[in-house]
Amino acid sequence: MMKQYVTEHQSKHLDLTAEATRILFQGKSEFQDIIVADTPEFGRMLVLDGVFQTSDKDEFMYHESIVHIPLFLHPHPKHVLIIGGGDGGSAREAVRHACVETVTMVDIDGKVIELSKQYFPAISKAMREKNPKLTVKVGDGIAFMQEAENFYDVIIVDCSDPVGPGEGLFTSSFYQDTYKALKEDGLFVQQTESPFMHRQLVHDIFSRVSAIFPISRLYTAYIPLYPTGMHCFTMGSKTYDPLTWQPNRKRDFSTQYYNEGIQRSAFVLPNFVKDVLYGKKER
Amino acid sequence: MMKQYVTEHQSKHLDLTAEATRILFQGKSEFQDIIVADTPEFGRMLVLDGVFQTSDKDEFMYHESIVHIPLFLHPHPKHVLIIGGGDGGSAREAVRHACVETVTMVDIDGKVIELSKQYFPAISKAMREKNPKLTVKVGDGIAFMQEAENFYDVIIVDCSDPVGPGEGLFTSSFYQDTYKALKEDGLFVQQTESPFMHRQLVHDIFSRVSAIFPISRLYTAYIPLYPTGMHCFTMGSKTYDPLTWQPNRKRDFSTQYYNEGIQRSAFVLPNFVKDVLYGKKER
Repeated sequence: MMKQYVTEHQSKHLDLTAEATRILFQGKSEFQDIIVADTPEFGRMLVLDGVFQTSDKDEFMYHESIVHIPLFLHPHPKHVLIIGGGDGGSAREAVRHACVETVTMVDIDGKVIELSKQYFPAISKAMREKNPKLTVKVGDGIAFMQEAENFYDVIIVDCSDPVGPGEGLFTSSFYQDTYKALKEDGLFVQQTESPFMHRQLVHDIFSRVSAIFPISRLYTAYIPLYPTGMHCFTMGSKTYDPLTWQPNRKRDFSTQYYNEGIQRSAFVLPNFVKDVLYGKKER
Repeated sequence: MMKQYVTEHQSKHLDLTAEATRILFQGKSEFQDIIVADTPEFGRMLVLDGVFQTSDKDEFMYHESIVHIPLFLHPHPKHVLIIGGGDGGSAREAVRHACVETVTMVDIDGKVIELSKQYFPAISKAMREKNPKLTVKVGDGIAFMQEAENFYDVIIVDCSDPVGPGEGLFTSSFYQDTYKALKEDGLFVQQTESPFMHRQLVHDIFSRVSAIFPISRLYTAYIPLYPTGMHCFTMGSKTYDPLTWQPNRKRDFSTQYYNEGIQRSAFVLPNFVKDVLYGKKER
């Protein structure tokens, strides 16, 4: 019997290989190679440039973590910007907050948006249903951020890895533009890979964000699809500190990963992660 | 150039493959197939029956989680029993607690103990140095537990998966023997796989433990080497509840993963894990 597989080279020396029962799409956009495959382990899976991006079975862990933690940190977010996030999962979670009035999503790759609507109906729900809060733009997130000023309450950088089209989203100048695009009490969050596997990268990003934002924090979440399963998110905030968070409004929708305990515990870091951020100490 | 690899079939449909620069040992004990390999990604790695057991680079995450969380939950543990744990990592962590007077380790496979002393000097440190607190026994943990009564403060079941030699360590009769072997305020913990990948197993174990111990709790830790990176530990306790833990004594040694924040946050569970334990609810 012939079997098909999709493999991610998680590093030069480590591969994760998922059996695929069906390849639904395999092709190239202007920016990247794209595969959509059905896998028994993760359900339907999106692969960009050979990197497993999201899957039907574990996407809730990623999308709830990157959206609800920053949105519930802010006591009254009205305007949300998502850079990247072409699959639509972050937009779907953001529009669920009653206080959120507008969600603007800017992804550079229209093909990812189109394929997500076609093959990931649950993830792309808010895009498919043309949720009235949501505006989807196909364009360059870096250029978009340069134009924005003092408008967004929360910015979510739901980007791919810092190689390929996502590279410019990890620079100090991008973080300065992000700072400028936020209101005076705004905050932003970015997915920033694995603090176990990508220690130098996580350190460097945290240093850049810390140089610009008065409050910079890191939090982690379990994402089985991503290298090591230990994923981190870097947050820069002007006013609100996740370490002193208290519940500020009711959550009137159900979640599969997020809860009010996770809102706090996600910021509790193992000692080696503190070392990655702040340098090696006896702890 | 020829390359060597070690692969774990994490499930029927998912493989994790690590490049190996050197295979130091490959053979069979009375109980299982054993490989010791040097890998660029995880350092030296122990593989039992095709399952990645531990590695020099991430072993601290597992051993600190399975040892320090139960030991610091108990305010004054004197006598500790480790079932399994043949690599010696759990024993190494347990003897570091000043209040601990004896650590008894019972592993069924003497070959694993011997190989760990030879190839994993850091992990097997307490065994190699014949730490005076530590007694290492080669034998059947199930039979040992049947004989023990009202003696141990903390029991750590550092076993392999519930197939092969570890199978009998996940039964109600074993948990009853464990209850009997513990002092009146004793507690035990067991590694119990991934709550994302092994939902039915985690549910069943938790139900069995809950039927015997007045306090049963689950906690999680990031273990990059294990399937999904999200690993869980099931705890049964007669008196002390991790959900109301307060620092009870000084930690006078440094750690790489564990800290007092982790002691609490490890027990904060994502909603889907609560569903695995208690059944599906709107959360």
